[in-house]
Amino acid sequence: MKFNPILDTLQTYEAGKPIELVVRDFGLSADSIIKLASNENPLGASKKVIQALKDNAHLVHLYPDDSYYALKEALCYHYSILAQEIIIGAGSDQIIEFCIHAKAPSKVLMAKTTFAMYEIYSKSIGAKILKTKSDSHNLSEFLELYKLHNPEVIFLCIPNNPLGECLDKKEVFSFLKQISKNTLVIVDGAYQEYAAFKDGNKEIKPKELIEQFPNCIYLGTFSKAYGLGGMRVGYGIAKEEIISHLLKIRPPFNITTLSLCAATIALKDKEHIQKTLQNNFSQMQSYEEFAKQNKIDFIPSFTNFITFLLERIDSNALADFLLKRGIIIRNLKSYGLNAVRITIGTKEQNQKLFKAFEEFLKASV
Amino acid sequence: MKFNPILDTLQTYEAGKPIELVVRDFGLSADSIIKLASNENPLGASKKVIQALKDNAHLVHLYPDDSYYALKEALCYHYSILAQEIIIGAGSDQIIEFCIHAKAPSKVLMAKTTFAMYEIYSKSIGAKILKTKSDSHNLSEFLELYKLHNPEVIFLCIPNNPLGECLDKKEVFSFLKQISKNTLVIVDGAYQEYAAFKDGNKEIKPKELIEQFPNCIYLGTFSKAYGLGGMRVGYGIAKEEIISHLLKIRPPFNITTLSLCAATIALKDKEHIQKTLQNNFSQMQSYEEFAKQNKIDFIPSFTNFITFLLERIDSNALADFLLKRGIIIRNLKSYGLNAVRITIGTKEQNQKLFKAFEEFLKASV
Repeated sequence: MKFNPILDTLQTYEAGKPIELVVRDFGLSADSIIKLASNENPLGASKKVIQALKDNAHLVHLYPDDSYYALKEALCYHYSILAQEIIIGAGSDQIIEFCIHAKAPSKVLMAKTTFAMYEIYSKSIGAKILKTKSDSHNLSEFLELYKLHNPEVIFLCIPNNPLGECLDKKEVFSFLKQISKNTLVIVDGAYQEYAAFKDGNKEIKPKELIEQFPNCIYLGTFSKAYGLGGMRVGYGIAKEEIISHLLKIRPPFNITTLSLCAATIALKDKEHIQKTLQNNFSQMQSYEEFAKQNKIDFIPSFTNFITFLLERIDSNALADFLLKRGIIIRNLKSYGLNAVRITIGTKEQNQKLFKAFEEFLKASV
Repeated sequence: MKFNPILDTLQTYEAGKPIELVVRDFGLSADSIIKLASNENPLGASKKVIQALKDNAHLVHLYPDDSYYALKEALCYHYSILAQEIIIGAGSDQIIEFCIHAKAPSKVLMAKTTFAMYEIYSKSIGAKILKTKSDSHNLSEFLELYKLHNPEVIFLCIPNNPLGECLDKKEVFSFLKQISKNTLVIVDGAYQEYAAFKDGNKEIKPKELIEQFPNCIYLGTFSKAYGLGGMRVGYGIAKEEIISHLLKIRPPFNITTLSLCAATIALKDKEHIQKTLQNNFSQMQSYEEFAKQNKIDFIPSFTNFITFLLERIDSNALADFLLKRGIIIRNLKSYGLNAVRITIGTKEQNQKLFKAFEEFLKASV
């Protein structure tokens, strides 16, 4: 059978290994496994969310309210925006997909090492990918490539996954002033809650962004700070002109009834978010100390993970060593780096990781 | 800003009205509303599923096992197929989307009145839509159009939504023998559980289908008989050649952690399915009697809904009259028909509908 020839050019996204797989492959018990591979919230979802899920479990036969009224209302209040400036997706990934299909760009610009789905979705429609020379976001390089090639879509991941670095709001806004109003700039704020907590200069407010730059769309997610990775809810915020076009390609019922309920409640539980952010950055310190003690380079992180740049040791060997001991981290070899990305866990999880990591270091001397 | 010009040609899917909207618009209490518009299971999900959702609510921060191992294993056992012959989607809708993108057809063939998403997804890539003259599935007309235009994709909805009629397996297989192995035939079995229960001649077994016709894909869903409309889980079953191509365009984590859990358990609760099917067809009789008594034409249905073809009365007026009384049915005016599609509810719901319907009939004499 003949298929779309574009399929031959596609790579598949390599997800962090799930606990279930490690249970099957290594015969470990699920409870003993520590997963620090997919940047999930180690504190879990808000207790209020978990209660609401239990209270609404009997309603799963009903399709969700496809207008997502309650969630949009909560987002309007949270960000001081209008309902017609919001689109809901099955994770912010899906909004990326909508943007690519709605814009159908021939060229797309992004940082060399950034979220893999940008490239995957762009390639799926045959777009040419332009990448900066530097791994992390370098806006002079972005500008040079922009002027040279005039791409119709630009991705900025602020802060950046999988490296953890973060552009300042000021430099982002200066850059955006030089971009044509016909170019769609996708500002991926999946980890913005973390960056804004650590350093106010990093905070990008969606309302201010789209008022000043109506060619921008801001992406947010409930998968990280809100602890709902398994519920698949994200959103895009842009002026109505952009949102109305994206809505044309949104499939009906693209999030579940329980996801809608969970996200609406999660957004309002400020206490859980504060606890999450505090734990994250106090535990981040122990990672930085561990790295310094063991002379490992790391990228100062504005997210809920930290990236270790390895020199003497191999990321494959490290990831395998830890996996056999039931600790899952993210090997960045598929990004072309001898590096690992580790999600900041609970104190207990992190201490176990440090111990196993030290064993590895001793064994590889 | 310039967008993909294809967007101008797209229509949006009109979903059944959600309860939340009727609550907002008419000031009715959510409990008093009867929704017979979206073919959800009126008995709800299996009790075992609801319990499992409660037991797993604390795991929603974790991404699902993206291999969907447990669910595929359950489907393998259920249908006697192999794991590599299965793809999981966010509803079977999403599998339709994968098929259209993977095949990139220039022409697509379908019945005149069938599931709206076939046309919406096909148009989204600019394909030409070929439709039979008859509203319901007429395989001679399908064959004639096939020979004339050579479409790369054919949709068969067995039984058909929104009309309810169902082709016999025998005639489907005779038809398929005349179709090129390079044409992808999508056999949508969203309501197959109902058809197979009512009449064994309608049953299409995925294993037999794909063994005999390797150019076919069978679509199944957990949204109807399994009572999980709100959880968005469907599946495609085809030979590995087709599935491997579709997997290339599946986004990671396309169903939620709780959806994966719910579907896996729902598939195994045979008792709940039996109860669902028995209630459906015993209540279906009361709809047929109601129609006969009131001299309303209907299409004998092999699904969990019944379509009334109206003559003396207008479907807009009827749907509005019922809506104001808190009863939501599906007006088929958007399909170009003066008809309504009513989901078979519980005995109590159906009796309330009959009462209100009769009031409408009296008022319109």
